Amino acid sequence: MDRTLSLETLEKVGQKIKLLGWAATIRDHGKITFIDIRDRKGIVQCVGQGLTKISPESVIEIEGTVVKRPENLVNKNIKTGEVEVQIEKVEIISKAAELPIDLGKEELNLELPTLLDNRSLVLRHPKIKAIFKVQEVVIDAFRRSLKAKDFFEFQAPSMISSAPEGGADIFEVKYFDHKAYLAQSPQLYKSLLVSIFERVFSVNKIFRAEPSVTARHLTEVVSLDAEFGFIENYMEVKEMAEYVIKFILKEVEEKCAEELKMYNATIPKVPGSIPIIKLREAQEIIYKRTGRDSRKEKDFAPDDEREICKWSLEEKESDLIFVSHYPTKFRPFYTYPDPENPEFNQGFDLLGRGVEWLTGGRRIHDYDTLLAHANKWGVTPKNIELYLQAFRYGMPPLGGFAFGAERITMQILGLANIREATLFPRDMERIDMRLSTQDSTSEKTTK
Amino acid sequence: MDRTLSLETLEKVGQKIKLLGWAATIRDHGKITFIDIRDRKGIVQCVGQGLTKISPESVIEIEGTVVKRPENLVNKNIKTGEVEVQIEKVEIISKAAELPIDLGKEELNLELPTLLDNRSLVLRHPKIKAIFKVQEVVIDAFRRSLKAKDFFEFQAPSMISSAPEGGADIFEVKYFDHKAYLAQSPQLYKSLLVSIFERVFSVNKIFRAEPSVTARHLTEVVSLDAEFGFIENYMEVKEMAEYVIKFILKEVEEKCAEELKMYNATIPKVPGSIPIIKLREAQEIIYKRTGRDSRKEKDFAPDDEREICKWSLEEKESDLIFVSHYPTKFRPFYTYPDPENPEFNQGFDLLGRGVEWLTGGRRIHDYDTLLAHANKWGVTPKNIELYLQAFRYGMPPLGGFAFGAERITMQILGLANIREATLFPRDMERIDMRLSTQDSTSEKTTK
Repeated sequence: MDRTLSLETLEKVGQKIKLLGWAATIRDHGKITFIDIRDRKGIVQCVGQGLTKISPESVIEIEGTVVKRPENLVNKNIKTGEVEVQIEKVEIISKAAELPIDLGKEELNLELPTLLDNRSLVLRHPKIKAIFKVQEVVIDAFRRSLKAKDFFEFQAPSMISSAPEGGADIFEVKYFDHKAYLAQSPQLYKSLLVSIFERVFSVNKIFRAEPSVTARHLTEVVSLDAEFGFIENYMEVKEMAEYVIKFILKEVEEKCAEELKMYNATIPKVPGSIPIIKLREAQEIIYKRTGRDSRKEKDFAPDDEREICKWSLEEKESDLIFVSHYPTKFRPFYTYPDPENPEFNQGFDLLGRGVEWLTGGRRIHDYDTLLAHANKWGVTPKNIELYLQAFRYGMPPLGGFAFGAERITMQILGLANIREATLFPRDMERIDMRLSTQDSTSEKTTK
Repeated sequence: MDRTLSLETLEKVGQKIKLLGWAATIRDHGKITFIDIRDRKGIVQCVGQGLTKISPESVIEIEGTVVKRPENLVNKNIKTGEVEVQIEKVEIISKAAELPIDLGKEELNLELPTLLDNRSLVLRHPKIKAIFKVQEVVIDAFRRSLKAKDFFEFQAPSMISSAPEGGADIFEVKYFDHKAYLAQSPQLYKSLLVSIFERVFSVNKIFRAEPSVTARHLTEVVSLDAEFGFIENYMEVKEMAEYVIKFILKEVEEKCAEELKMYNATIPKVPGSIPIIKLREAQEIIYKRTGRDSRKEKDFAPDDEREICKWSLEEKESDLIFVSHYPTKFRPFYTYPDPENPEFNQGFDLLGRGVEWLTGGRRIHDYDTLLAHANKWGVTPKNIELYLQAFRYGMPPLGGFAFGAERITMQILGLANIREATLFPRDMERIDMRLSTQDSTSEKTTK
C-alpha cells in the first residue's frame, strides 16, 4: 500500500490507508489510545484499542481507515481536524529513547540554552519548525523577486585573501602556508559582477568575528545581497530594495498565515511608498519629540532607531522607514558621496519596528574616485585588484543592498533572540554545543 | 527616454531608442564606425559617422534609430542580426583604460593564469559568461526539481566545532579562544534534518584543504545536497538522484541551447532508466574487456572510470552509470551495509563521461548501529552530539546524494579545468590573485 500523507486523509474518508510519521503525542484513555502522527504535511489524529506501548517521537507506521469525526469532536486547531484514522495495525520503525523535554505541549517555554542543547529535538516542535518555514519563504521570495527583474544569481566566495577594510572582526583561516579570511560581505564581488551581468544577487554565508554576546549577534549569517547597474540616482536603489521587501512580506503573508498566527505576528504596515528621510532630518525630529540631542552623531543609538520608527508609524503610517545620508567618512570607501554635500553620502538603512532591517545605497563607479577613496580609507589597492579591475575597464553607475535572512525572520515573527531564527546558531560561545563549560552570558536574553 | 535592451531592438524597427551598455567591439571603416554594444540581453550592432574615439569596453549611451538590415547583411550569429541602430548621439559614461587582452575575438585562447589574473575582465566575454549561465540553470533546476517533490531548502552551517571524520584536508579557523573548522560536507546536518523536515536539500559552500593541484580540485565548492526519509531501499535514493540529474539536463538543454552550441557540447545520452551495477561486477567487466585486474581494489582508478563509462555507452546506450556496493570499511561510518553482504554497502556513485558526477546512498538510521559504527570508525560521539540526538529520538530509514555545481557544469560543457567553471576559483596557490610568486603547477593543465 502506498503512503498517505497526513493532509491527504481529508480526501480519503472511508478508505484504508498507510501513514508514516512520528508519534507526536500519545494519550492513553484506558483501553482507547489516541496517537497524533506527525509528518511533513502536518498532524492527524489516530485512535485504536489495545495498542502496544509506544514512546513519544518514535517513528511508526499505521494502517487504518479514515473516518469523519462527529461535528462536536472536530478539532479546529489542525488542518485535518475533521477526520481521524481508526488504527488497524501499528508498527514501530524506529523507537525513540525517553525524551529530555516534553515536545507535546503547544508552547515549549524553554530557556535558550535548553533550546540549543537539544536543537535536533526541539526543531521538531511545530512552533519552532514554523520559524524555518517562514525563513524558507523569505529566501525564496528574495530570489524570485529579483529573477523577475532579470537579476543573475551568483555564488559568492567565502574565503578571501585579505581583510579589505582593516581586519577588525574577521575570522582567520589557516590556508596551507598562507593566511586567508572568511568574507564579512560579498560587497566587492557583487559590485564587480555588475560589469559582467549588470544585475546580480546572491544568497550566501557571511562571517563576523564580533566578540559580542547580544540577542542580535551571530558569527555566521545568511546574507541576501543584490547589486545592479545603470541607475540614474540612489532613489532607484531605494525603490528596488522596497520592491524586494514588499514582495517578501506579501509572500510571507500569503504562504505563512498559519505560522504568523502561531506567533501572533502581523506583517509590517507599509504605505504605497515607504518614507525616506536624511539622518540629520531624523535626528532633528527625534530632538523635537524627545529633547534628546543626537544631531551631531554619526549614526542612531538604539533609542533613536525606536523613536524614528515610532514617528514613522504615527506620521507616515509606515512600520518601515528609510534613513539616508550618513556621514561619508564613517561609511565604507565605495559609498557614493552626495554631490550637493559630499560630507554626507547616498547610502541608506531601512529601519523597521525599532531596528535596522537592511542597508544599501549608491556606490562610486568612477575608477579614479574609487581609487582615491580606497587610499584615503586605508584600503590597499593590491588587495582588491579584481574589484578595481572591473572599474578600470568600464563600470556603469551602480548601487545595491543587503540584509540578513535571520534578522528579517526574527523581525517578522517578533522573536526575542536571533538565535531562534537560525537552525544551528553559531556565536562566540557556541557551535552546535557550548564551546567551553563557562557560564553563558549571551543565552540569558530570551526565554 | 527609457532604456531599450539590445534584444528589444527587434521589436522597435523604425523607432528612436536609447541603448546603454559596453562598447564590445569598435570597427572603424574610414568615416563610418561600427560599434557592437553589449548589455545583459546580448549584443546589437550600431553604426555612425564622425564619432568621437571610444575605447573598447567603455560604458556608453547611444541614441539612434533601429533599422532593418538588408537581407545580405543579416548576421545570423547574433539574435539581433536582422537589425542595426543608426547612431544619432553617443555619450561615454565610463571610459575604459587600454585593455590588457583582446576581448573582441570569438575565442580568447588564453592560458589559465591569464584567464584568472584578469578574471573581472575575462568574465565579460560571451563564451566565458555562458559557463555561468549554464551553472545558474543547473543550480536553479536542482532547487526546482526537489521543491516539486516537497523538499525543504535549508541553509547548512559552514563553521563546525570539530573535524568529525578525522581531520584530514580540513581548514582550521581561529575562533575567538577556540579552534573551529570549515565544513567539508553538510552530510550530518542534512541527515539529522530528515527527522524534522523529512526531505531536505541545500545549495551551500563546502571546503576541502586537499593539497592537490589538479584540473579537478578546488578548495571551495558549491555543493548540491539532498537527503530524505521513509525510503524502503537504496534504489529509491538512486531513482531520486536520477530524477534530479535528468531534470537538470533537460533544463540545460531547453534553456542553454546557445551556450551549448558555443562549446560544441551535447547533453549526455540517458536511457529510460540509468543502469546501476555493483563495483565488483564493474571490475569484472573491466577485467574482461581490458585484462586490467582491479577486482580487489576498493575503488576505481581513473582508467576504470573511463572504461566502465565506455562499456555503459556501448552496451547500455547511456553516458551515465551508477556503481554501487563499495567496500563498507572504506566508506564513511553512516553508510548502510548491505544486509546480504555487510562487507559491501548501499552507497553509490554516478559516473558520467569517464568521471564521477555524484555520490549518494542509503544511511544507517538505527541509533545503536550508528553509534557502534561511529566508535569503530574513530568518530568521537561527543563531537557529533546534535547528529546522534536526531537518531536517538526516532529517525526513519533515509538516504541522499550530493554533487558539485562546478563539476557538473564542467562535464556538461566539456571544460578542461574545473577552475573555468568557477567565477572566482580558490586553490592551493590562488585566492583571486596568486598567493605567492612561485611558479604555478596547477594552472598548466589547460589553455
